[in-house]
Amino acid sequence: MNETAAAQLVELLRERRVAALGTLHAGAPYVSMVPYAIVPDGSGLLIHVSRLASHTKDMNADPRVSLLITQELETGGSALALPRASIQGMAQEVAADAPELPALSAAYLERFPDAAQLFGFADFSLFKIQPESVRFVAGFAQAHSCTGETLTKLLAG
Amino acid sequence: MNETAAAQLVELLRERRVAALGTLHAGAPYVSMVPYAIVPDGSGLLIHVSRLASHTKDMNADPRVSLLITQELETGGSALALPRASIQGMAQEVAADAPELPALSAAYLERFPDAAQLFGFADFSLFKIQPESVRFVAGFAQAHSCTGETLTKLLAG
Repeated sequence: MNETAAAQLVELLRERRVAALGTLHAGAPYVSMVPYAIVPDGSGLLIHVSRLASHTKDMNADPRVSLLITQELETGGSALALPRASIQGMAQEVAADAPELPALSAAYLERFPDAAQLFGFADFSLFKIQPESVRFVAGFAQAHSCTGETLTKLLAG
Repeated sequence: MNETAAAQLVELLRERRVAALGTLHAGAPYVSMVPYAIVPDGSGLLIHVSRLASHTKDMNADPRVSLLITQELETGGSALALPRASIQGMAQEVAADAPELPALSAAYLERFPDAAQLFGFADFSLFKIQPESVRFVAGFAQAHSCTGETLTKLLAG
């Protein structure tokens, strides 16, 4: 991925606030909407989910997930050329006694202050999604790929 | 699903133009962006894809898909309460000699005129996604479900 594409990818991930989360549900794909934040050191994306939700049960049964982050389609813009990133990764719950939990919670709440009330509910927890590979389409016939390690370096930079 | 929610769901599907498509990729979920149109009789959603693309190979190997259509997040709006619909369904390629192909192509091209050039490429084809179940979240703690048959009736109405 060249420098221009890398900068576009980082901007897309930082500017957008919700992703489409793909999980494995009884063997079939299932896509749901999740607000997301970026782990401060760039090592992944953070989502805050309820244990009662289908996607959470799915992630606990199989940690393989896919996240799609799509640029907003402007009036008159081409849907075919819409910039978007697909991130394949592994989801893991952040344990209640993890030393990094306070910093991760703060990063999430800085982006989504109205989620504060949910942090008091016992069935909600943070999941970190560690990227393994990324497919970034910057526009029509402009596809780029990178590893999860590369994305981490880009997000940390 | 009550009448208000049904009307909101139909409006969401008609107004939005791109979806997140979840496919099964080597046993893992994979989410990619697809522009979509609605089949004129309401019986499903239409996407136009290249045989060279991962999601197309995925659908040919396993027709189970999930489509997420999300309302745009307005400035100052709550990401947590964003209206969205997850549609579980089965994808099937529209055969080159199918009697309904001209009408389906016209419906797609009415929504995406700039896709016309792609209809001349041999590796592109339309896939119809027939809904089996729908989960519609109209806002915070406002979740509704319906069958694919109900969605078809709503979209045909």
